[in-house]
Amino acid sequence: MNIRPLGDRVVIKRLEAEEKTKSGIVLTGTAKERPQEATVVAVGPGGYVEGKDIKMEVKVGDKVLFSKYAGTEVKIDSEEYTILKQDDILAIVE
Amino acid sequence: MNIRPLGDRVVIKRLEAEEKTKSGIVLTGTAKERPQEATVVAVGPGGYVEGKDIKMEVKVGDKVLFSKYAGTEVKIDSEEYTILKQDDILAIVE
Amino acid sequence: MNIRPLGDRVVIKRLEAEEKTKSGIVLTGTAKERPQEATVVAVGPGGYVEGKDIKMEVKVGDKVLFSKYAGTEVKIDSEEYTILKQDDILAIVE
Amino acid sequence: MNIRPLGDRVVIKRLEAEEKTKSGIVLTGTAKERPQEATVVAVGPGGYVEGKDIKMEVKVGDKVLFSKYAGTEVKIDSEEYTILKQDDILAIVE
Amino acid sequence: MNIRPLGDRVVIKRLEAEEKTKSGIVLTGTAKERPQEATVVAVGPGGYVEGKDIKMEVKVGDKVLFSKYAGTEVKIDSEEYTILKQDDILAIVE
Amino acid sequence: MNIRPLGDRVVIKRLEAEEKTKSGIVLTGTAKERPQEATVVAVGPGGYVEGKDIKMEVKVGDKVLFSKYAGTEVKIDSEEYTILKQDDILAIVE
Amino acid sequence: MNIRPLGDRVVIKRLEAEEKTKSGIVLTGTAKERPQEATVVAVGPGGYVEGKDIKMEVKVGDKVLFSKYAGTEVKIDSEEYTILKQDDILAIVE
Repeated sequence: MNIRPLGDRVVIKRLEAEEKTKSGIVLTGTAKERPQEATVVAVGPGGYVEGKDIKMEVKVGDKVLFSKYAGTEVKIDSEEYTILKQDDILAIVE
Repeated sequence: MNIRPLGDRVVIKRLEAEEKTKSGIVLTGTAKERPQEATVVAVGPGGYVEGKDIKMEVKVGDKVLFSKYAGTEVKIDSEEYTILKQDDILAIVE
Repeated sequence: MNIRPLGDRVVIKRLEAEEKTKSGIVLTGTAKERPQEATVVAVGPGGYVEGKDIKMEVKVGDKVLFSKYAGTEVKIDSEEYTILKQDDILAIVE
Repeated sequence: MNIRPLGDRVVIKRLEAEEKTKSGIVLTGTAKERPQEATVVAVGPGGYVEGKDIKMEVKVGDKVLFSKYAGTEVKIDSEEYTILKQDDILAIVE
Repeated sequence: MNIRPLGDRVVIKRLEAEEKTKSGIVLTGTAKERPQEATVVAVGPGGYVEGKDIKMEVKVGDKVLFSKYAGTEVKIDSEEYTILKQDDILAIVE
Repeated sequence: MNIRPLGDRVVIKRLEAEEKTKSGIVLTGTAKERPQEATVVAVGPGGYVEGKDIKMEVKVGDKVLFSKYAGTEVKIDSEEYTILKQDDILAIVE
Repeated sequence: MNIRPLGDRVVIKRLEAEEKTKSGIVLTGTAKERPQEATVVAVGPGGYVEGKDIKMEVKVGDKVLFSKYAGTEVKIDSEEYTILKQDDILAIVE
């Protein structure tokens, strides 16, 4: 089964707390808009989206930081994913 | 009887809970803006809509994920449909 | 007597409940923004409206669905009409 | 004495209740944003206004419908007028 | 001493109540956004202001109507003035 | 030590009450958004800022009027300054 | 480990209170939106971001002033950083 995000949307899979410790990233506890680390699972085509020309800068497999409350959570084959706009991704972690 | 959505609007038919299980998609219970799976029933022509040039990326028959509270619900010939803007569709499910 | 809507505005006449049943459209009862079926009575010229180039897609006689609370209601020669922007029309019903 | 509205503004004189009955227009009583019938008294030059190119579509003498709470009321030589933007005029009545 | 307003701003001097009666303009008492008569004292250069190309349509000495709560009041050499954007001026009175 | 404001930002130093009296400017007491007199200390380069082409119209040494609550206050070498966008400057005083 | 901010985002490391005193900058205590001094750690590529062409004006190593509540805080390898849009940076301190 497959998800193709539309426009400038991206599907990401949030990393578990264990993985976060391994990669050395610990997110601040003062929540409300605290970022989250995730892996990019699918990337929309970008292009002319709602009157703006969007070039996709992330690709499948990238580790990214994003704002926790951005986007919409979905469950596919019992796995949880988040669909959000690329602009809600803050940075790529390498 | 027929519905032709205007501009960048799309008419979708929400999948029933049973179908969702079959397709392997289970949506998260933490509602407020939880996505919904649906089938595209009719697609507007797109083009120059409210000052933006919109290219329609979905087509009739596509299975899509959308935000539950987006759009307007209508009943046609006792069937319930939702009319929403294409930008409220998150992804195509294949 | 005659009404010429300005810009991208459209004058519509709401269908009565009886007509709705005949055409097979029954609108959902969960109101707030429930759509309404109507007939187009007059159509503005469109063109360059408030900085956007608007092409009118509806024409006199079209049956349309619109959001109930969109537009402004007027009474002309004891008949009630609604004047709204074309973008508040969801779809043409055929 | 003379008023020259700036940009896309229009000066209108509201019709009295008596005139309304004569012309056959009766406005709905559910107010808040109920339209009003008026005569156009002065029209701004239009042109490039706040970043938008506005073409004036009404002219002095036109009977128009407008939203009651749009614009600003002024009294000139003991007569009450309303100054509003052309976009707040809904339609020309003929 | 001299004030040069920036961009599309205009400096105006509000007319006193006595002058208003002389000129025949009496403003409505239902305040909140009731217009005011004033004389233009200084005019900004206009041009490309915040992404919009603004042509100044008022000139020093013009009598204008403006919305009471628009702009900022300043006192210069014990005289009170108002600095506002040209778009908050409703009309020129002749 | 030196501050280089970014984009269309300007660093200003507010004039003390004494200087205001000397220059003849007395600001109205009805505060909330009462203007302030200040001297320009540093000017950003302007140019293409957030999608708008901004030409800087103030220069170091200019006396300006600005809205009191605009911008952000900073202390540098025990002196207080305000950093604000040029559009929050109302006028140049000469 | 490495962070590559997307678009017009910038990663900064806030200076400690001690460093602030050394550099001579003392920030005002009336908080809510008081600026903060920081060092730029990583800079996004800029370019066409959300419909606007953004040129990055800061570079790694710059000392900058920014609004305290702008951006999102992250912890990487036990160090705290802030990711914000370049437009939330007020000035470069030299």
